[in-house]
Amino acid sequence: MLFRMETLPIALDAMGSDFGPGVVVAGAVEAAQLGIPVLLVGDEAQVQAELKKYPQNPNVQVHHTADFITMDEHASDVRRRPEASINVCTRLVKEGKAGAAVSMGHSGATMASALFTLGRIKGVDRPAIMAYMPSQKGFCALLDVGANADIKAPYLQQWAVLASAYYQAVHNRPRPSVGLLSIGEEEHKGSALVLEAHPLLKQTPEINFYGNVEGKDIFKGTTDIIVTDGFTGNVVLKTAEGEAKVLMGWIKEALMSTLVSKIGAMLARPALRKIADRVDPSEYGASVLLGVQGLVFIGHGSGDVKAVKNAVRVAHEAYQKDVLGRLKSFSSPASG
Amino acid sequence: MLFRMETLPIALDAMGSDFGPGVVVAGAVEAAQLGIPVLLVGDEAQVQAELKKYPQNPNVQVHHTADFITMDEHASDVRRRPEASINVCTRLVKEGKAGAAVSMGHSGATMASALFTLGRIKGVDRPAIMAYMPSQKGFCALLDVGANADIKAPYLQQWAVLASAYYQAVHNRPRPSVGLLSIGEEEHKGSALVLEAHPLLKQTPEINFYGNVEGKDIFKGTTDIIVTDGFTGNVVLKTAEGEAKVLMGWIKEALMSTLVSKIGAMLARPALRKIADRVDPSEYGASVLLGVQGLVFIGHGSGDVKAVKNAVRVAHEAYQKDVLGRLKSFSSPASG
Repeated sequence: MLFRMETLPIALDAMGSDFGPGVVVAGAVEAAQLGIPVLLVGDEAQVQAELKKYPQNPNVQVHHTADFITMDEHASDVRRRPEASINVCTRLVKEGKAGAAVSMGHSGATMASALFTLGRIKGVDRPAIMAYMPSQKGFCALLDVGANADIKAPYLQQWAVLASAYYQAVHNRPRPSVGLLSIGEEEHKGSALVLEAHPLLKQTPEINFYGNVEGKDIFKGTTDIIVTDGFTGNVVLKTAEGEAKVLMGWIKEALMSTLVSKIGAMLARPALRKIADRVDPSEYGASVLLGVQGLVFIGHGSGDVKAVKNAVRVAHEAYQKDVLGRLKSFSSPASG
Repeated sequence: MLFRMETLPIALDAMGSDFGPGVVVAGAVEAAQLGIPVLLVGDEAQVQAELKKYPQNPNVQVHHTADFITMDEHASDVRRRPEASINVCTRLVKEGKAGAAVSMGHSGATMASALFTLGRIKGVDRPAIMAYMPSQKGFCALLDVGANADIKAPYLQQWAVLASAYYQAVHNRPRPSVGLLSIGEEEHKGSALVLEAHPLLKQTPEINFYGNVEGKDIFKGTTDIIVTDGFTGNVVLKTAEGEAKVLMGWIKEALMSTLVSKIGAMLARPALRKIADRVDPSEYGASVLLGVQGLVFIGHGSGDVKAVKNAVRVAHEAYQKDVLGRLKSFSSPASG
């Protein structure tokens, strides 16, 4: 594995979180303690006020900008507000002053900013957001999880290639398997989109195409990567996160319901804790925006300190492994 | 509540299960013990051989037919094989000899048979399959879960009306709430289909429209009913079932990992058992096919004895409550 000689910091949008800069700064400090240089982009006074709570760490620096785009504002606002924190983050990446941009929150604004500032990789029609979901085999990478609600079959092909390159670079797994999400394993089953995409994926030498997979295959971990449209992917991701939360809540509740079960719960706590961690979205930190000319990561707006730390960690890892270089060598399967 | 004077039996396809007639017959016997008359439709010799294992119950009768459609055969086969068990079931409903038809398994063949034999309710373009999913509020009814991969916005409107009528009749809840599955709560977010369907649903006085819901709202139980296309619905249902299975497996495994956690598990067993039951699809027995002129239920092909019993139970309940009468008074919101 090749490591870079120089290490650029990760540009972290300090203003992106639902909870304000406190959580983001705390996450940045934890990431910095892992040796990762972090550049907090946001209102200096607010950020410094939070930073004061921690021992000084040269790995954390602040880049001041007063403007930021709130969750209520439109993604399109990025075009006319160059000093908005997310735009500053992507610009730092563009100018070679940051290795990757990370935002907790407004995924629409982050994508718009990435497209506007960094542009698309040649041959990619639309960028897609790839998220990690827990599975029996470890995890499963799902894309698109919300950037594109209505898509065309060639997008799925492009995303399969991009995701394979990313997965291979980051997880050191040659030829990760790719599944096409459908409503039956059989080649002739599915929506019109899936029926059109299946033969395209089959003919793509850059990927290790497994075939159609079903909803149940996500948690089974049948394939390393699953491609789908951004509507289905978003609904699936949010259903799965919601289900994990509700099930773990039920388990807690059930274990607290009687004295005997309470004792049982106390004894089983470390074992149950491991599972709660495994299904916690903040374990994976952030989703990656694939298809733009730069490394951009999007975390949950409601992500906690651990989520921020892990978002910075995965961004740093992708930067260190020169994932962008691998993605840039992408050529459109259709045009290639 | 009005109960029918005469009680017609539930026609149960004895040949539909992945496991052969043994599981179906056992489920029929359990349903009969609840006082529900069941007509087992299938190969008499095979069915009788299974029936012999149980004490005689006049509530269980056999209707012989030699032909049946296997899982490997095409749904379209129902057209040229009138004596296939699923066709006999739907014909018994059509002729007023059975209150409802139940099949464990081949959902395509069951839907084709229902459409072919019973026909659509006036004003319904396409029938949809409605499934129950567990939620924090009890359960959530989701449709379509696989009958129609590619749909038009008015279908969602028709399904919302059908599902509301069904839900109201079966669960005695006036004006159940209906959500439109999307990728954001905001009215302007979603796929082209959702953007077109939203105003249609908003203008439908027959339903209590809540607005857009997200994947996380399924397990939260934000609305009683959620409408979506059959592609998304099928993927969501299978993802959720798969996740529940994997999570419960992890919990079992974690509790068995150490001696201390084993003791904990033993003490907490009854509490955990309740949750396992709650997320077990066989608790809900079967999905209902809405939009055809007759009551038709489709269970999991891999459903166990409990699933068969519950499928017959929900079919009987719907029949007793004259749900079909309420559904038939449906008039297309578009035409009405």
